[in-house]
Formats: sequence, C-alpha cells, structure tokens
Amino acid sequence: MTEPRFDFASDNTAGACPEALQALVEHNAGFTSGYGTDHVTRKAADAVRALLDADADVRFLASGTAANSVACSTLVRPFEAMLAHQHAHIRTDETGAPGYFGQGLGSIGLPGASGKIEPAALEAALAQTDVSYHQSAAALSITNVTEYGTVYSVEEVRRLTSLAKAKGYPVHLDGARLANAVAAGFDVKALKSLDIDMLVIGGTKAGAPLSEALVLFNKGLSRRFDARLKQAGQLPSKGRFIASPWIGLLADGAWTRHAAHANAMAKTLAGKLPFPIVHPVEANGVFVEMDEPTLQRLHGAGLFVFRFVDGSVRFMCSWATTDAAVEEAAALANSIV
Amino acid sequence: MTEPRFDFASDNTAGACPEALQALVEHNAGFTSGYGTDHVTRKAADAVRALLDADADVRFLASGTAANSVACSTLVRPFEAMLAHQHAHIRTDETGAPGYFGQGLGSIGLPGASGKIEPAALEAALAQTDVSYHQSAAALSITNVTEYGTVYSVEEVRRLTSLAKAKGYPVHLDGARLANAVAAGFDVKALKSLDIDMLVIGGTKAGAPLSEALVLFNKGLSRRFDARLKQAGQLPSKGRFIASPWIGLLADGAWTRHAAHANAMAKTLAGKLPFPIVHPVEANGVFVEMDEPTLQRLHGAGLFVFRFVDGSVRFMCSWATTDAAVEEAAALANSIV
Amino acid sequence: MTEPRFDFASDNTAGACPEALQALVEHNAGFTSGYGTDHVTRKAADAVRALLDADADVRFLASGTAANSVACSTLVRPFEAMLAHQHAHIRTDETGAPGYFGQGLGSIGLPGASGKIEPAALEAALAQTDVSYHQSAAALSITNVTEYGTVYSVEEVRRLTSLAKAKGYPVHLDGARLANAVAAGFDVKALKSLDIDMLVIGGTKAGAPLSEALVLFNKGLSRRFDARLKQAGQLPSKGRFIASPWIGLLADGAWTRHAAHANAMAKTLAGKLPFPIVHPVEANGVFVEMDEPTLQRLHGAGLFVFRFVDGSVRFMCSWATTDAAVEEAAALANSIV
Amino acid sequence: MTEPRFDFASDNTAGACPEALQALVEHNAGFTSGYGTDHVTRKAADAVRALLDADADVRFLASGTAANSVACSTLVRPFEAMLAHQHAHIRTDETGAPGYFGQGLGSIGLPGASGKIEPAALEAALAQTDVSYHQSAAALSITNVTEYGTVYSVEEVRRLTSLAKAKGYPVHLDGARLANAVAAGFDVKALKSLDIDMLVIGGTKAGAPLSEALVLFNKGLSRRFDARLKQAGQLPSKGRFIASPWIGLLADGAWTRHAAHANAMAKTLAGKLPFPIVHPVEANGVFVEMDEPTLQRLHGAGLFVFRFVDGSVRFMCSWATTDAAVEEAAALANSIV
Repeated sequence: MTEPRFDFASDNTAGACPEALQALVEHNAGFTSGYGTDHVTRKAADAVRALLDADADVRFLASGTAANSVACSTLVRPFEAMLAHQHAHIRTDETGAPGYFGQGLGSIGLPGASGKIEPAALEAALAQTDVSYHQSAAALSITNVTEYGTVYSVEEVRRLTSLAKAKGYPVHLDGARLANAVAAGFDVKALKSLDIDMLVIGGTKAGAPLSEALVLFNKGLSRRFDARLKQAGQLPSKGRFIASPWIGLLADGAWTRHAAHANAMAKTLAGKLPFPIVHPVEANGVFVEMDEPTLQRLHGAGLFVFRFVDGSVRFMCSWATTDAAVEEAAALANSIV
Repeated sequence: MTEPRFDFASDNTAGACPEALQALVEHNAGFTSGYGTDHVTRKAADAVRALLDADADVRFLASGTAANSVACSTLVRPFEAMLAHQHAHIRTDETGAPGYFGQGLGSIGLPGASGKIEPAALEAALAQTDVSYHQSAAALSITNVTEYGTVYSVEEVRRLTSLAKAKGYPVHLDGARLANAVAAGFDVKALKSLDIDMLVIGGTKAGAPLSEALVLFNKGLSRRFDARLKQAGQLPSKGRFIASPWIGLLADGAWTRHAAHANAMAKTLAGKLPFPIVHPVEANGVFVEMDEPTLQRLHGAGLFVFRFVDGSVRFMCSWATTDAAVEEAAALANSIV
Repeated sequence: MTEPRFDFASDNTAGACPEALQALVEHNAGFTSGYGTDHVTRKAADAVRALLDADADVRFLASGTAANSVACSTLVRPFEAMLAHQHAHIRTDETGAPGYFGQGLGSIGLPGASGKIEPAALEAALAQTDVSYHQSAAALSITNVTEYGTVYSVEEVRRLTSLAKAKGYPVHLDGARLANAVAAGFDVKALKSLDIDMLVIGGTKAGAPLSEALVLFNKGLSRRFDARLKQAGQLPSKGRFIASPWIGLLADGAWTRHAAHANAMAKTLAGKLPFPIVHPVEANGVFVEMDEPTLQRLHGAGLFVFRFVDGSVRFMCSWATTDAAVEEAAALANSIV
Repeated sequence: MTEPRFDFASDNTAGACPEALQALVEHNAGFTSGYGTDHVTRKAADAVRALLDADADVRFLASGTAANSVACSTLVRPFEAMLAHQHAHIRTDETGAPGYFGQGLGSIGLPGASGKIEPAALEAALAQTDVSYHQSAAALSITNVTEYGTVYSVEEVRRLTSLAKAKGYPVHLDGARLANAVAAGFDVKALKSLDIDMLVIGGTKAGAPLSEALVLFNKGLSRRFDARLKQAGQLPSKGRFIASPWIGLLADGAWTRHAAHANAMAKTLAGKLPFPIVHPVEANGVFVEMDEPTLQRLHGAGLFVFRFVDGSVRFMCSWATTDAAVEEAAALANSIV
C-alpha cells in the first residue's frame, strides 16, 4: 500500500494557510489581557465586522462543534427543537453535541434535495401545533455551503429565514464553509439583512489553524456571553491565538481567495473522476456514486474519502489542494474502477 | 496613566514560547487525518508519556476549564460531589463549568493552609455518611501547584490520594502549573505511582499557545473518550495545532526550564515587593497583603494584578518575565505604597 | 356535540381501581419516616419482589416518563445512545425526556413490525464500529407490551437481550403495560432470567393513581440511587402514597386481573369496529386504519382516540372499560363511517 | 427501645388530612383527559387562583424538589446563579437538584438571622460586577416560612423583591410552608402585588398526599410550560391525583386551619421543651440548642428529630400533631436531659 493521503478526505486535513499562520506568529509578541479581552481579539473582531459590514458582536471559538452547539443552546431550550436539514451536521456528525450543550434540546429534520431545506417542508413543520409530549420547533438552522456542497443563494436563505421569523423564531446559520459559498457568489455583506441571529463563520476549513467566528447579529443575545463561553470551556485564556489567524485571513482577502481556489479544484476534480456526480458541484466538495468494493479499493490504494449519510462518497478540496494532487487522485480513481 | 501592563496579572498573558511556536509552525506542513488521529498528535502524546515515564492515554484540549471539567464529569455523577480545596479553581473561577459539563455535579470544599488540603479535613469528609439529600463525595481533586502558589510534595499528594483510594474514590490532579511544581522539585515521574486516575498537565501557562494535556493513567476510563471529547466540543478537527506545541515544549526540557525561570523570577520579585508575603513562594506566584486603596493605585499606575478569594493579591511570573520587568514592577510598587 | 369521552383515548384516563385506592387510604394512618424509607414502601417493594420472584431493588416513582428517563440516564452516558424500536415511547412521546435527564444522551431507532424490534436490525446496529462523531450504542431498551399493542414472548425478549449482552450492553425494559403482557401470557417470573438490568413496571395504566415501579435486577446500579432520584425530583417525602397502591394491586392479583379485563375488552372492541385492524390485538389496544375525515367525525361525535406515529388510530381499553362502553363506542364508530 | 416515632421529625411524616384524601377519592370517578388538561385540575387551579385572588397560571407537581428546581431552571441560565439564603433548602438539602434541572446553574448564599435574607447582603450581592469566570446573580429566591421557622412579613418580602426587581431580576418564592406563614398572619392575597414571578405553594406539608402548586404570576414564563414539565417527568398522565387534594384543602379553609393548628402545637411544644430556643417560634417548627449526646439519647428513646445546618435541632409539628403527642415528646425530652 502507498502512503495514505488525507488531502481529499476533508477540508480540515490541510494545515494553516500562510496568511493565517503568519498573523498568529506576528501577534505572539508581548503580553495581553486574557479571555478574549485583548487587543488582538478586538482587531480580529473588527475584521469580521468589516467583512460583514455589520455592527455585530463577535467571539472566537476553537471548535466548530462548540460554536454551533453554543448557538443552538442559546436559541433553543431543552424542551424545544431546532429545525434543520435532516442531514445537517448538527444532527448527524456532532456526537449529539447540541443536546449535550443544551441538556437534551431536540432537532427536527427537514427534507430537501442536495442539502437545501425544502421551503414547503419548513412551512409544514412551522405549522405544527404544539403538544406537550413533543419538542416543538423553536429556531431554524441553515447550513451554507450545505452538507452536500451546494450553495444557497441570498434569496433562498431569505425565503427560509422569513418563514421562521414570521413565527417569531430565531435563526442560526452554520457557515463552516461560508468562505466557499462567498467564493461561489454568495454576497457576504447581505447576511446582515437576512434576519440571522447567530452566524458561525468557519475559519478552520478556510485556512486557520483552528478557529471559528461566532457572530451575534442579534445583540440581545450577547448578555453574559463570555460567562456562557467560559462555562462551556470556550473562552481560552490566550484568546489571541484563535483570534489572530482571522487578521491574516481577512487582511487582503485570503479567506475568499483560498476558498475560490478550493472551489475551482473541486470543479476540475469533478471533471476527471470516473464516477457519476450526485450533487451539483457548487463549492469545494464533489459527491459521487460509488459502490462499496470500489471505495475499499480506493482506501486500499491509500486515498481516503468517506461515504456520507445519503450514501454518496465525498471528495473535498481545500486551500492547499494542488493541481498535481487533483491529477493524482483522478488517475488513481480511474485506475481502480 | 502609563500603558497598562498585564505581565504580572497571570501566567497566561504571555505569548507562546519560541520552542512551542516553532514546533507548531514546523508541523503545519502537509495533510493529516483529523480529530486527534494524526501522527503529530501521536508524537506529542508519546512525548507526554516519556515525560511521565508512563503508559497512559493522552489527549490534548484547547482549554484548561474544559480539561478539568471533562475530568470531573468522567469521575463524578450529577448526584455526587468532587472533593477539592475550598479555593480550588474548579470551585471558584470556572463559572461553574464542572457542573455544566457534569449536569449539576457538586463539589465539597475542604480547608487547608495556603491551598493545600488538610488531610484531617479530607478524612472527615470521607467519613461522612451518605444521605439521599446531599451530593456525597465520589472523587478527589488535587491542584499542584496549588491555587496559592505552594507545591505539594510527592508524599503529601500520596497521603491524600491514599485516603481517597481507601474509600475506592478516583483522583483528579489539576496540573495547570505542574511544570512549576516540577521545577520546584516535584518528581514528575512519581505521578504514575500516586494512584491518580486523571491528570491535567498545563501547557498554556507553560508556554504553549493554548493546550492542555489530559492524561488517563486509568485506562479503564478511556472507553469512547474521543466521542466524549467530540460531544463536549473538545476534539478539534485540526488537532495537530494543540498537539504540536508539546513536541517543542518537551523536546529538550523547555517545559521545565521555562517554569524554573518563572519560579526564580517570582522569588526575586518577592524579595523586592514592599508588601507582606502571605503564602510561601514556592513556584511562580507571589501572594501579598495589600489594602484596596493601594491596589487601586497600582491599577492606576498601569500594573494589573488581582485580589484572590482569600483576600491576598497575586503577582504571577511566567516563562516570559524578564529581570527588567521584575525591577520595574518592584519599583512601581515601592513608589505607590 | 355530545359530552366528550376519553375512555378509549388512553389507558390512563381512568381513575384508580378500587384495590389501589383502598390500599392508599388504608396506609394513610399514622406517621412514617420519609423519602421512601418507610414501612409502607418496604411492604410494597416486597410485593413487587414477590411478583417477580426476584431479589431485586425496587423504587417507586410518580411518573413513567421519569422512570424510563432515570433508567436511560443510569445506563447510557451523554455521548452514547440507547437502542430502541424506532417508535418506542422514549423516542417519540416523552418530549426528549431521556436526553434531558441524561444531558443529551442519544437513541438509535430500530425497525420491526408492529413495535417489535427486528433481531437482525439489532444485530446490525450492534455490529456498527464506534466512531467519535456518533453516539454509539451502549444499552438496549425493549417495550413490552409494545407501542402497537403486541406482546413479546419470553423467548423473543431473550433473543434481543442476549444479543445486547453478548456485546456487554445493559438492558432496560419499559413495562408501562407489563400487566397486559402478563395477562396475555407473558411469564412475569421469567423476567429475572432475561438479563434485564432495569425494569419499569407500570402501575398507573394498571389501575394505580400514579405510580411506576423501577426494578433494579442489577444491584450494582443501585449505589446512591436514592440520591439520584432525589436530585431528579423523584423521591417524594410522602413516599407511601406512591407505594401503597401497589400493595392493593398485588395483594390478590388485581394487577393482572384488571389487565386481563382490559385485554378482553380490546378483543371485543376489535371485533365490532368497522375499520381494518393494522396490528395484532394481543393486549389492550386496538390499532385501526382510518382516514382523517373519519377521525374528525369521531372527535366531532365526542369520542377521542388518537393517530399514532405509524399513521394508525388507537383505541385503548383499561381496567375501567365496560361492556356497555365498548358497545357505545362501536355503535358510534359504525354510525359515522 | 420504644417504637420509633417520626411525628416531630418533619411535617411530611404525617399522612394526608381528611379533606385532601376525601377530595382525592371523590374525584376518582369517571374518565378524564390526561396530562393536566382535565376538569379536576382546572377546578383545583381555580381554587388556587381564588386563594391568591390572582389570575395566574397554575400547575401541580408531585415533588417540591422538582417544583423549586423547575422554577430555578426557568429563571436562571446555567452560567448564572440564584440568590438565596445561605441555608435555603434549594442550596442545602436537594442533592443539587436545581443544578441538575438547570445544567449546573449556580447559587449565591446570602447571610441573615434565623433564615431571613439580610437586605444589606442582598444589596451588596446585587451590586457585584459581572465577571466572565463567575456565575453572576440572575434571580432571587425567598423562602417563607424560612428554613428556621420564622415568617417574613409582607413588607419584608417586598423590600427584598424590590431590590431584585430594581436590577431586572425575577423572583421565586419557595412556599413549601406558605400555609404556616399565612396562619401566622402573612396575607396570602398580598403575594400578587409583591413582584414574584414564580411561587411554589406547599401542599404536601399542609396535608396533601403529595402535591405542590407551581404558580406563574408572570405569564410570560408559561410558554410551553407543559412541555417543560413533561420533559422533566413532572406532568403525570393521571394529573387529577395531584390536583384533587387541593380542592379539598382549599374548599373551606382546611389548608390554613391545619397550618394554624400546627403553629399552635409548635408554640405549645416550645414552652415545654427543656432546651434553649434558638429561633423565634413563628410557625410550626421549634429549633433548639442540644448537644450531641442528648440528641443521641433522644434518638435512642425513639424520638427522631434532626440537627440542621446551623447546628440547631428541629422539632416539627404538622396538621396531625396532637396535644397528647406534644405532651409525650416534651415529657420524653425532659426525662433524658
């Protein structure tokens, strides 16, 4: 067997991009106050606000699981449920973290092609009558880029959030791959107008060592938020190290530029793989149909890619994916079919 | 007012030490598998095992609050309590994080001079009869270096753990400043013989960007531990970034060397401060008696130090504390008394 | 519209049966110690042990939701999951209570006709490899009588529990309607041999005012169980009032006798209803196919019965169901089809 | 040793009073809808509203621990704390139940003589600055009758609630022995004017089999409250059995009448006991100074009374205490001193 390669297994198998790493190193000098009260964190938060063109509260967390789970537990009480796509990450791949952070808060899965919530399904769920023996819907979670690599348009997001808002329910947007959505044409500055209460912007998959930005467009939710984070183990003393990478990522557009590169690599790869493509390739993931023996042969050949909840197999590209790697992966795939 | 200085406010106000930062940068290259399954994490875990001379399971977490809280919730059920010094960090400064991670698990505070649990008090607590309306003791937590800068000897720890073990209770050791204890003479390789089930070794305060090592001497507790961490938001995808600093810290003894420096700086500072010293200066903290107007004058002069639970005011030194800074802080303190 | 009638809506719409109520009144006299330490509770627990012919620990709780949720949270940690039929009560109708009591513990739904877990599906679930991002199976929950009114035989239960035990997983049996299973031929004294760790025996649906017996066949789980119950709000001071009804129910077989009556009423009703029967009528419930307009006409005529998760409509009989009521309900149903 | 007697051990060692038990029996007939939606529950809730002369939402729970813990978890988030007297039941005798129901929510103990919160201490606590590493105050809990048998006047309660309200914090009143306070002169109809958000009225200690009324003066908190209760195992299907006793207790003043009797018995007992009285005897408890050998002799003689957190020993009277019992207890106490 050849050396195993993880570069298409996920977009979190790459290291940090140069811009993020350099900013981390540059902001290492000197002493700062702790727990997110420092000037590096302020500067990074300003950069996020500038990206969004919005006067929002911003925090940085070391984990996407935690960022989304803190959001869920802020918006939904234990006896209520989060509405989300049935295959949303918070429902399928977080070891039940939202329910741990939120003491058993529930979720209601909504159908929809290629990871996008079907508006009619959302409407139907919102129309359900409360009963005491069910966890009723209390908030909406949208993922963009979706779990299957597709990208909601601004109008598509607005349609969903307006349905939730008509019922008075708050909205969470899981943007673990928001950079890829933006690179695909989603207007990042439109987010502030979309009635989103809490937004998680992915830094890790975009090239940070490990950091997610948690944005509170709804500042009414910010009260004692640092205590909330501290209690959840998400307010590290040396907060500058999860903030500073954002300064590098956002200084000259690396965040979007790298995402555009990852998206382009995915498109190229999709054109070369010998498998049927099962979801539109709109961002940095390629989802294909592949039977189990073929997948095992790929693994045997050292190329790790994974089967997803809907049965498709995912190839991911990242800021670090090279043309050569795409060629090699495609060649290897073609050699084992 | 002069520029505020935080260098004596805590030992987490410094950046990362060169060894840790360099290791982080060096291990940035290439792709790895995620969620702590990577070779960098393995190498760092090996280094921790070598430090301890023990075949233990090792995990890395981005937060000390989380590391201690995960440990508490592993050892104590919600209707039970952790025995700890009454001023232990887990009881006083974590926003109730152990109770959040462990759904209301309790703690029982034990007295003892300068942060060390009085063995007789532990014995008395262990002799309490279970009653259904109290959270009974189920585990013991020891902090070394203590909250007040003193250092338990190996024999002192053994005495406490043997009392707990005689009742069949597991033991947690909070070693946020274990490096400073080791630099003060505590034999790190004796830990494996002290009946400690879970150990947290501080990396952050020792010079890492942000990382704590969670050591499971008791491997019976390791089952599904990664799932436990994932659910708690403590299994970051790019795990190498909280593991690699340990490679640098432990490669040639930087972890202990820097701690010895911090300890020495504290001793020097203690000799120059114009305040009564209220706890033995055995590690990197100096605790002094200071009235409130004096503290306010210090803050006004830009030197941030904080009052603790017992009323004393703490000056902390770190790997980054310089002789010049000690001179300046001492001069400033002398100028305002 | 006629006066609404709830007597077929559930088996918990009836009052208490005479035997239970009389025992409650009889044991009201005098003073007792509190919190389940009293002689009435001991006597009731003895009666349950005699019923089971087993030396088990027994507690009484005022709520079935709580009894099952306490069991789940005793057997499964937050980052693990309970295996259960996909339509099991603990998954569908408890407002997420197991997750609340167990801080987000998960469940894995298993298929199977008419509420019985398909053994092959259980085997497949047990064969799943642990991954850190999923809540892996840690225990099995079986419901007898099932959610759809069918009754597992002793051998069917044994087959499921032996599969779980082969993996070392504990077993919970939700016996909210165990009396009806026993009346249908299930040997209650066989339970002790079935490798069940925790058993909930329904009192409420069997004729108690409100009480469930929680049986710990596995006494290793009993440590500090009263503290567990107290913390969960399930150790009432005047415990005798949830214990004494069991003395009446079990003194001369009322518990089984009433259940046999309810089962017989269901069989009679099934023979008279003008709807297709969709599940075997083996206990006290009749599940029929009925379109929505017909159900609305039934409700309009004052007869409340409910649609279940699988789409069928349920008629329930209880200890208090009379021949006359069965006639009336059948006549009414026939009049509106 | 004589037969142990528990009649002075607590006011929950008595059975149900005749009025409560008769109402329970009377409302047993017929079928009702479940989960607190029935006409018996409505009638009982109306009776509670009439008692309070207030249009509040009312629920009935089987457990006082649960009623207070549900209230705490409604008013305080996990990273916040409840202000309460340092010896309040919710802090000292509930096995940490508020923290279990509220995922680690904290409490801040306030001093004050004989169980009454010292207003100056409350003011000082309310003036504390929020810091991220502490659970900051978010609500106030008052107990009347207090833990030490004293009774707040309406004006004393108002002073405390107005301090909390000035900070925007909600208020919980634990009225486990509210009947005894009312019998001692506290105007029950004044409660509605005291800015109390959630009130727990004790039924169990007042003569119910087991039931507490949870009153939501602040209806803004009622949204999905039945789901909250269901999830917490506090919405029993046969809700009538915890509601009906209130119909009997409140129909002709039994609730207050029995409490007045218990208060009178306590006054009589206090005059006969050979021990120094350490708290004013204003309700149904007598707290005395007693050394440990004497207490052991009392226990040895079969009279069970318990030592409290402040070191005093408590004798409780209830609706069922007789003159003869008071004479016997006093004689026994005098015989062993």
